[in-house]
Amino acid sequence: MLRTTTCGALTLQNLGENVTLCGWMQNSRDLGGMTFIDIRDRYGITQLVFNMNDNVDLCEGARSLGREFVIKVSGTVVERSNKNKEIPTGEIEIKVSDLEILNTAKLPPFLIDDKTDGGDDLRMKYRYLDLRRNPIRNNMILRHRMAQSVRRYLDGLDFIEVETPVLIKSTPEGARDFVVPSRMNAGEFYALPQSPQTFKQLLMVSGFDRYFQIVKCFRDEDLRADRQPEFTQIDCEMSFIEQEDILNTFEGLIRTLFKEVRNYDLPVVPRMQYADAMRLYGSDKPDTRFDMQFVDLTDIVKGKDFAVFDNAELVIAINAKDCAHYTRKQLDELTDFIKRPQIGATGLIYLRHNSDGSLKSSVDKFYSEEELVRWSAALNTQPGDLVLVMAGGTDKVRKQLSELRLEMGTRLGLRNKDTFSALWVLDFPLLEWDEETERYHAMHHPFTSPKPEDIALLDTDPKNVRANAYDMVVNGTEIGGGSIRIHDRALQALMFKHLGFSTEEAQKQFGFLMDAFEFGAPPHGGIAFGFDRLCSIFAGLDSIRDVIAFPKNNSGRDVMIDSPSTIDEKQLKELKIKTDL
Amino acid sequence: MLRTTTCGALTLQNLGENVTLCGWMQNSRDLGGMTFIDIRDRYGITQLVFNMNDNVDLCEGARSLGREFVIKVSGTVVERSNKNKEIPTGEIEIKVSDLEILNTAKLPPFLIDDKTDGGDDLRMKYRYLDLRRNPIRNNMILRHRMAQSVRRYLDGLDFIEVETPVLIKSTPEGARDFVVPSRMNAGEFYALPQSPQTFKQLLMVSGFDRYFQIVKCFRDEDLRADRQPEFTQIDCEMSFIEQEDILNTFEGLIRTLFKEVRNYDLPVVPRMQYADAMRLYGSDKPDTRFDMQFVDLTDIVKGKDFAVFDNAELVIAINAKDCAHYTRKQLDELTDFIKRPQIGATGLIYLRHNSDGSLKSSVDKFYSEEELVRWSAALNTQPGDLVLVMAGGTDKVRKQLSELRLEMGTRLGLRNKDTFSALWVLDFPLLEWDEETERYHAMHHPFTSPKPEDIALLDTDPKNVRANAYDMVVNGTEIGGGSIRIHDRALQALMFKHLGFSTEEAQKQFGFLMDAFEFGAPPHGGIAFGFDRLCSIFAGLDSIRDVIAFPKNNSGRDVMIDSPSTIDEKQLKELKIKTDL
Repeated sequence: MLRTTTCGALTLQNLGENVTLCGWMQNSRDLGGMTFIDIRDRYGITQLVFNMNDNVDLCEGARSLGREFVIKVSGTVVERSNKNKEIPTGEIEIKVSDLEILNTAKLPPFLIDDKTDGGDDLRMKYRYLDLRRNPIRNNMILRHRMAQSVRRYLDGLDFIEVETPVLIKSTPEGARDFVVPSRMNAGEFYALPQSPQTFKQLLMVSGFDRYFQIVKCFRDEDLRADRQPEFTQIDCEMSFIEQEDILNTFEGLIRTLFKEVRNYDLPVVPRMQYADAMRLYGSDKPDTRFDMQFVDLTDIVKGKDFAVFDNAELVIAINAKDCAHYTRKQLDELTDFIKRPQIGATGLIYLRHNSDGSLKSSVDKFYSEEELVRWSAALNTQPGDLVLVMAGGTDKVRKQLSELRLEMGTRLGLRNKDTFSALWVLDFPLLEWDEETERYHAMHHPFTSPKPEDIALLDTDPKNVRANAYDMVVNGTEIGGGSIRIHDRALQALMFKHLGFSTEEAQKQFGFLMDAFEFGAPPHGGIAFGFDRLCSIFAGLDSIRDVIAFPKNNSGRDVMIDSPSTIDEKQLKELKIKTDL
Repeated sequence: MLRTTTCGALTLQNLGENVTLCGWMQNSRDLGGMTFIDIRDRYGITQLVFNMNDNVDLCEGARSLGREFVIKVSGTVVERSNKNKEIPTGEIEIKVSDLEILNTAKLPPFLIDDKTDGGDDLRMKYRYLDLRRNPIRNNMILRHRMAQSVRRYLDGLDFIEVETPVLIKSTPEGARDFVVPSRMNAGEFYALPQSPQTFKQLLMVSGFDRYFQIVKCFRDEDLRADRQPEFTQIDCEMSFIEQEDILNTFEGLIRTLFKEVRNYDLPVVPRMQYADAMRLYGSDKPDTRFDMQFVDLTDIVKGKDFAVFDNAELVIAINAKDCAHYTRKQLDELTDFIKRPQIGATGLIYLRHNSDGSLKSSVDKFYSEEELVRWSAALNTQPGDLVLVMAGGTDKVRKQLSELRLEMGTRLGLRNKDTFSALWVLDFPLLEWDEETERYHAMHHPFTSPKPEDIALLDTDPKNVRANAYDMVVNGTEIGGGSIRIHDRALQALMFKHLGFSTEEAQKQFGFLMDAFEFGAPPHGGIAFGFDRLCSIFAGLDSIRDVIAFPKNNSGRDVMIDSPSTIDEKQLKELKIKTDL
C-alpha cells in the first residue's frame, strides 16, 4: 500500500509512530512559521504540520499545494496543542518529514464541503467531485450498509438470491418498456424489465421456496416526480405461505434495517385496511408520524341551508391542535394552499376553539353555537384547537384534505425526518377503472389474487373486489408492496379476461407463466421494496437522487457522460434500424 | 405458514411429533395395503406412509396423486423399518392423517431427477421444471453462497458496493454494445455497459478508496463459445495501492471463497510472467493442475538435415509420463487431434523412452541414439515416458502444443474437476496488433497503465510494451483480470493517440474521464472476475449455462419466454424508429 494507515484512524494511542498517509488537500493555514494542512480521505481528516524552522523546502512545498491536490505524506504522530474534540483524529497531528504530490488538481468548480456552493446542474456535471462531499458519500455508504443488512437478514431466513434476466421479452402493453434491438436477431427486440415479477413466480414453480434479489429495474417514462429511468428493487417471493407470513417476515426485515443501520427501534408495524386509510387519511400512504385523522361531519352539518355542505357528498374535518391563534393571513394561506391547481379545492371552512372556550367558525351565520358544539365534540377539540373542514365529492375531498393534513403536519413540526412511523395498508382493491382506456386495469399487477370471497363480484361489481395485496408505508411514503399471487391457470386466465385481454393475447404474452402453473405451482406471494426510496428515507432526504451515485436528470440524461446520444450509421445499419426524426 | 417444517428437517429426534409438510409428489410405491410417497421440496425428501387398513379414502387419495402434484400433508413422525442412511430424513417417515392437493400437475415433459431424459432444448423451454432438479438448483444455491461470501469478504475490508448505471453512453467503438433507444429523447440511444470500468474509475477520483459491485454486464456478440449476452462480474477497484496489494487482496478473496463455499484449501497462488506462461505452456491461461511444461529443443535438433526442424522457428516438446506404451493407433489419434482445423498442425514427432531404457523416435533416420539421449535429458524422461515434439512458427506451434498438452492432461486423468490450481499471470503486453483494422488495440483496455520503464518503447517498439496488468487463472480458465490504471490526463491522452484516436475523438468519447483526472485523481487499480465462470468452476461444470437460472441459447434467445421478439408499430412509432429488414 502507498500508505500505512488512513486519515481517520490516528489518535493519542499512536503517539510517536511513524506513519504514511495519502489523501486530498482539504485546506491549508499558515500561522507564523508554521503551516497546517488538513488531509482528507474517505475515512476522515488528519492535520499535518510543517515548520519553517525545521525544513524550509518541505514547508514551502506544503504552502504550494493547491486545494484537492493528491498527496502522500510521511511523519510522526504528535499531540496537538489546539485539540478538536469533534473528530476522532482531533487530538493528534502529523509532524511531516516527507511530502510527495501524487497528482495535482485544478480548482474544483464548487466547494468540496458539507454545504456546497454548487447548484444542481454543476453538481451533476461534476458528479465525481460532488461524491467527494461527506453527505453524498455517506449516503452511498449507508446504501451499501442497507444492502448488506438486507442480504444478511434474508440469507439467515433461507432466502436465495437469484439473478433474473435483464434482457427479457417485450410486452405489447409495455408502453413504459425500454426496448433493446438485437444484433444477432436483427429486427427483434428485447425489453428491459420493469420488475422480475414473472421470473420470480417461475422460481416458485421451480420450488425455490424463498427467493430475493436486489435488482435494477427500468421504466421509460416521465421522470419529473423524483423518479429515475433505472431504479433498484429488493424483490422477494415465498411459497407455501399466507399473507400473514409475508407481513411478519418483511416487517422483520424493515425493523432489522432500522436497528442495524440507524440504531432505531421501530415499533411493531400497525395494520390498516385500505378502506380505512382512505377514510381516515384520504390516502393509501398516510404519514402516521402524527394523528390528525379525518372526522366525518356529513351527517352533522347537512340540512342547515349551507349549500356547500348540503350539496357535498362528503364533509370531513381535521383538528389542528393549538392552531386557534391562526391569523386571518395564516388562514388565507391555507386556503390558497388548497386552491393550488395541483390540489384544486374551492374553499376551506374553519372552526376556532378559542382559549376562552368559545367556538367561532367561518360559517357562523349557518350554524348556531349549539351546532358548533357538536362539531367540536366530533373532533374532540380542546381550547386552542383549530378545526379545518372541507366538502365535496368523496374521492376528491379526501385527496384534498389529505394534502392539507400533510401541510398542517409540516407547519406543526410533526414530520421530523429522524422519527419513523411505519404502517401496513391491507386489502387494496384488485381493479382500478382507467378513464383513458375505458377499462379496468390491475391496481397492483395482473398476477395478484383476489380475495376468494370476492371472486364472485368480478362479474357484478368489479371495483369492489378486494385483492390479497399489501403496501408498507413509512412516513407517508410507500416503500414496498406485494400480494399473494394467483397460482392457478384458470383463475389467471379469468383475470386476463377481466383486464380486457383476448384468450389469444393472454396466451401469446403470458402463456409461459400460465403453462408453468399447470406443472405444479405452489401457493406463493411476495413483496418488492423500492430500494432507492428506502435509502432516501433512511438518509433523511426528500429526493432519491442523492442516494444514487450517478443519477440522471429529469430529462433522463446523465449530463456528466452526455448520455443518451446519437449513434453512428454503422451501428444503426448493423441493427437494421432507421431513426426517423 | 402452510407447513410446520420442511421436507429436509425431520429425524429420529422428532419422533411422535405432529407435523405438516408441503411439497411435490416425487414418486409413489404401493406395497400390499400400504402406499409410500416421497414428498420433495427445496430442502429434501420425506417419506409419507398411508395404510389401507387405517383409512381407505386417504390411502386411495394418495394413490390418485400424479407426479409433481403439489400437496400438503399432516401426520405423525414415526420410525422407518427400512432405513435410508443416505439422506438426513431417511430414518423416519410420516404416518399421514390428512392430505390436501394444493395444485395438480400435468406430466412433466422430462424426468425431474438428477439424471434427466430431457434434451437441451426441452430443458431450456421448460426451464422452470429443469430448475426443480437437484443439480441445477444446487448450482443456484452455490451461486448465492458465492455472492454472499464475496460481499462478506469485501465488506470486511472496507470495500463499498456502489451501483453504477446500466443505461450509459454508447461508444463509437461499441461494435458489441447493446443500444437502447430513449423515448424521452427520441433519436438518441443509451448503451448497456460491457463493464462499469469508467464509473469505477470515477469513484476512485471521488475518493471512494475501495469499491466493488456484483454487476450485470452486456455484450452483443457471437455466443457460440459458451457466452451469454448478459453476464455477471465481480467488479473491484482500489486507490493508493500497487499491483502487489491487488494481488494479495484478491488472492485472499478467491482463497476465502474456496474455503467457505467448497471447504477447499487453495494454496498460495503462484505468479508467472506472461512471457513465461507463453514459453512454458503456450497459453496465457495454462492449466496448472499438471506440469508437462514445454521444453525448447530448437538448438538441440537443428542441423541434422531434418527439414521440418531445420525450417522451424521453434521446436518444442512435452513429456507425457508413462505413455511409452501408446500404440501406433493411439499415436495416430494424437496426430489426427492436432491436425483438426481448429488446431491446424501438420505433424507430430515422438520419442519413446521404452521400459528397457532404449529410445525410439519417429525420426530415427535423422537422429542417432546419442542425439536422442540429449532429447531425453532435456525432457528429463524416465523409462516408460513418451515425448511429443512439434515444430513451426513460434506463436502457432506454442498454441498447437498447448492444445496437445491439455489433451494429454485429459487422457492421463490429470484434470480432475475437484482439484483446483490457481495462477497469477503478470505483465501482459499493453498492445496487441489487430490484423483486421491494421492497428494496435489495447490488450486489456485503454485505461491500463504501461510499465513506467516501458513507456519509451511506445513509439519505437509498441508490441513489447508491458502493462501493469494481471489475470488470475484457475484450472486453465481465466477467472479474472485487471490492471493498475492510468490516473494522469497526459498519459491517458497518449494512450488514446497510440490506439489511433484523434484528439477530438478521444475527448468526445472519454473526455469526462480525462477531465476528471485533472481534479485530483489518486493512483488506483482494480480487477474484475467473471462471476458466471467462477461459479461454473466451483460447480465442476464445463459450461456456464447451468449456473444461470434463465440462460439464453447460442442464438441469444430465451426460448421459454420467446425473446427477443418483434415489437408493435405503436412502440416503434413512439421511439421514432423504423426497422428495415
